[in-house]
Parts: sequence; C-alpha cells; structure tokens
Amino acid sequence: MTSSPPRAPARLDAITVLRALADPVRLDLVRQLSRSDSAIACGRFDTRVAKNTLSHHFKILREAGIIATHREGGQSLNVLRTDELDAAFPGLLTAVLSGSEG
Amino acid sequence: MTSSPPRAPARLDAITVLRALADPVRLDLVRQLSRSDSAIACGRFDTRVAKNTLSHHFKILREAGIIATHREGGQSLNVLRTDELDAAFPGLLTAVLSGSEG
Repeated sequence: MTSSPPRAPARLDAITVLRALADPVRLDLVRQLSRSDSAIACGRFDTRVAKNTLSHHFKILREAGIIATHREGGQSLNVLRTDELDAAFPGLLTAVLSGSEG
Repeated sequence: MTSSPPRAPARLDAITVLRALADPVRLDLVRQLSRSDSAIACGRFDTRVAKNTLSHHFKILREAGIIATHREGGQSLNVLRTDELDAAFPGLLTAVLSGSEG
C-alpha cells in the first residue's frame, strides 16, 4: 500500500495556522525544524511524546500547511514550509519562535 | 460594587497568546482595535456575537495580555496592548493581522 501524498492547503488560513502553532509540543517541533539545516525524520525529533500522539501533531501541522512531509529511503522526512508561511504571514514564524524562546 | 481591576499577565506566554488569537471572533476584535485610534467600548464593536459570548472573548484576550480594559464614564473601554505584544513577540501582531486580511 502506498501512502497518500501529504496534504497541504491551497491557501494558508490564519486561524488554522495559529491553532496549529498554539500547542507546546507542535511549537517545539516547529522550533526544531527551524533550527535544522535539513529535513528531520518523524522518529528523530527530540521529544518525549509518544509516537501516536506525535503523528497526530504532525498531521495538524501538515494540514495547516506549516510543514511538508515526504517519503525518502523508508523514512518520513519533515521540512518547514518557510517560504509559503512567510509569503502568507510575513514575519509570523520569526515572531512566534523568537518570542517563545527560553 | 466596584469591578475588579483587569488582569494582565506579568509575562506574555506564546501559547496563550496564540490560542487567544486563534479564533475568528477574537481576531476580528483585535483587528478592529488595531484600526482604531482610540479605545473601543465593549458595546461598540462591529460584531453580531451575543453580549455574553463577547464578554467571554474579551476575557480570554485580556487574560492573554492582548487587550487591556478600563472603566471610564460607565463604559468598559478596550485597547490593544501593542507595546507589550511587540516587546514580547516582535512582529506577531502585524503578521497575524496582515496575513489574515481579506
């Protein structure tokens, strides 16, 4: 069985994006992606959250258009959709990540 | 009976602020405040939301530190805490409001 292609919304919606970011686990995942030079496999995030719960969080981030996931070498690799986010909400990602630091 | 002073958090929290903004009614209230040169009385917002529900939304915005409310001439007047928000999350308000436009 092949996995269905990751869904990304045609147009980023402010409320959906804010809701997706308004969670400590998801904000942490986004932060880790923002600090990484390359894609991060689902199993390689620094988190204590259970795999099932993590899948749920990835789904929310993906459906909000915040991350994109692709399959490569048997892994699901995640990247931030920085360009799309910056185009839709200039400065949002930087503001959220800088402000919630430390 | 005098009303208790509006509560504002000592430190703005990213998750709380994002959660408060991640609602169409509240985002609309924030937008109206951002466009206003002066404080807006609770009863003077352009909204179809019932008064009780509106009070709930004001409370969430106030407790997140996004708005401040003061009593004046028998009215509850609301302002955006722009300086505090910009200090805690530089660019967030602009990003959210510009991106969710139209």
